[in-house]
Amino acid sequence: MIQKDPYLLTPGPLTTSLSVKQAMLRDWGSWDGDFNGLTAEVCERLLEVAGGRNSHVCVPMQGSGTFAVEATLGTVIPPTSTTLVLMNGAYGQRIGKILDTLGRPYLAIDKGDYHPPRGDEVAVALQEHPEIEQVVVVHCETSSGILNPIEEIAEACRKARKRLIIDSMSAFGALPINVVELPCAALVSSANKCFEGVPGFGFAIVERELLSASAGQCHSLSLDLHDQWKYMEKTGQWRYTPPTHVVAAFLQAMREHEAEGGVDGRLARYSRNRDRLVAGLRDIGFRTLLADEWLSPIITTFLSPNSPAFEFRRFYDAIKARGFLIYPGKLTVADSFRVGCIGQLHDEQIDAVITAVAEACQELGLSIPVAVPALAPDNLETV
Amino acid sequence: MIQKDPYLLTPGPLTTSLSVKQAMLRDWGSWDGDFNGLTAEVCERLLEVAGGRNSHVCVPMQGSGTFAVEATLGTVIPPTSTTLVLMNGAYGQRIGKILDTLGRPYLAIDKGDYHPPRGDEVAVALQEHPEIEQVVVVHCETSSGILNPIEEIAEACRKARKRLIIDSMSAFGALPINVVELPCAALVSSANKCFEGVPGFGFAIVERELLSASAGQCHSLSLDLHDQWKYMEKTGQWRYTPPTHVVAAFLQAMREHEAEGGVDGRLARYSRNRDRLVAGLRDIGFRTLLADEWLSPIITTFLSPNSPAFEFRRFYDAIKARGFLIYPGKLTVADSFRVGCIGQLHDEQIDAVITAVAEACQELGLSIPVAVPALAPDNLETV
Repeated sequence: MIQKDPYLLTPGPLTTSLSVKQAMLRDWGSWDGDFNGLTAEVCERLLEVAGGRNSHVCVPMQGSGTFAVEATLGTVIPPTSTTLVLMNGAYGQRIGKILDTLGRPYLAIDKGDYHPPRGDEVAVALQEHPEIEQVVVVHCETSSGILNPIEEIAEACRKARKRLIIDSMSAFGALPINVVELPCAALVSSANKCFEGVPGFGFAIVERELLSASAGQCHSLSLDLHDQWKYMEKTGQWRYTPPTHVVAAFLQAMREHEAEGGVDGRLARYSRNRDRLVAGLRDIGFRTLLADEWLSPIITTFLSPNSPAFEFRRFYDAIKARGFLIYPGKLTVADSFRVGCIGQLHDEQIDAVITAVAEACQELGLSIPVAVPALAPDNLETV
Repeated sequence: MIQKDPYLLTPGPLTTSLSVKQAMLRDWGSWDGDFNGLTAEVCERLLEVAGGRNSHVCVPMQGSGTFAVEATLGTVIPPTSTTLVLMNGAYGQRIGKILDTLGRPYLAIDKGDYHPPRGDEVAVALQEHPEIEQVVVVHCETSSGILNPIEEIAEACRKARKRLIIDSMSAFGALPINVVELPCAALVSSANKCFEGVPGFGFAIVERELLSASAGQCHSLSLDLHDQWKYMEKTGQWRYTPPTHVVAAFLQAMREHEAEGGVDGRLARYSRNRDRLVAGLRDIGFRTLLADEWLSPIITTFLSPNSPAFEFRRFYDAIKARGFLIYPGKLTVADSFRVGCIGQLHDEQIDAVITAVAEACQELGLSIPVAVPALAPDNLETV
């Protein structure tokens, strides 16, 4: 059953197509017109997907998605401006940590491990704290796999005339989002998520007016999104050496994204993956952390079996031996593991994952149906 | 003459081997043990090349080389500590710009476009300014292609008991450097230079003691080299998503570096490239900016012909049409262009570049031997 190149059942890095990887079999001069053409096409396509062609600009940033989030926050938030951070997991907390490091003031609504921040809560906070100038929310909080209700949060921001910044790292490309209609002042994502590129850079889609007004605000030279943008506008080049091969792979990935039907096509496949996966694992006896309405088509958290025979490391290895890498849990309240739905995964792989999980349970001596704790379902948000 | 994939005659990104690129044809789980093994081997090998196995640690950092430089300076230099920056080109100036952005105090010795900072000048500055705690120098300043005399600078630092930080971006891997013998508190370089990997991350080789004492000093979350190191020590993983494919390619590149004879082997090939290139272009009538003793085996600056028929863009395009990308000049005092010697370039490619330059001169209507201005040779450092 062992295969050399396991499938990644994770929220990125993920399994990419061979053709995406093959796009890396060429070296590019990072200042050359040919490569500048790749960059320009990537940015145009991203703006198109986000619906921001007339109002926003797209600026790529070297590094992981967190680098792009820090670059965006550090560049567009004035040093003394107050931010409201919505937290319900590790990625929301990381946004707080970035603002801590930068010494920028913020308030937080922290819903714990997996409860969604709601529009009415945001509205109340904005009313009570008129000093807040922008709200930051994580679109899909991959800690739990929850899909946060960005529409109602955006509505609260719109009514209070506050800017909304969305960390849509693991959602953009598979979840429909229109930065003008929402509206959203800045959206951040990265190459190795729902567009199914390889890791190496992130990007921000920012209101042109906002970014124009952000000169000199950034705490970092490398992460200065305004400088990156201005340099790119002037020269067509990235300000410092870009990950040329990763950019070439990403353009190929975006072409394949379009060929699959864009956001709609990808959402359909990922949703099908999730439904198939959840049904299969529920058949084995597993329970999802969240009620169906909050399950994202990105990654799903399952509660660990309530058995001394269950040990995540052995479970992981048994599934890895069958050709799949799953993801550990990241909750503080309940023992769990996570399985992703994104990347080059189709019915065949999902079915094989379900089989691998069932076999791993048998190998570990867990009876099927497995017993899961009753704790978490009581805590479920079922609004 | 046109080929689809031109050779890059530049100081990185550069032309890599096919086998290095083919190492990117696999997806890796960034938290998985298999990938952690790649990272560990990369770091061990880099420490070995730098001679710092017992005293230093190697910490990779996502992004371009500048990200790694900023991460290193921001992490290891205490906020109120004074730095001496040695400048003789764009990369030394960029170090000053980083310290400006971070608000950290520094003094500079700026030698202009291409004169080397000398050990005795550093010694005098350190004597006159006892508040200086560290000196930063660029090893090979690719603006001019000069190889700065780091040994005599290190000796001045050693005598004054000051830390030396070397930006060895385009030199490490081809120029011998031993961080203990020199000594050097921190050395920064990147994947896509003399080890001939593809771009996507940089790394710092830092005294363990210095990095240990650097907790909480960094101005940035993403660029915090201390946090990256501690997290990697604890988990074997990068703190945020690494460019997995680029790391896999880099390990392959390091194996090929070793197979070529390591630093000695690479220095021999690059030196041969440079000598062949300089001789060939001198035959056409070009002059190098620098006297032979300052020519690095990385990149060479040639003075542009003193003719109205010469226009860099047309010259570049004519050479590109023949399958080679050269590099524009970066001097303020003289019109110039640059040709790199690093990457997968051998006699055959160097000879073809010389032919391409000769043909480009004819195409542009420049007589051969071409006439170059007399200005620069008078300014040459010929110590």
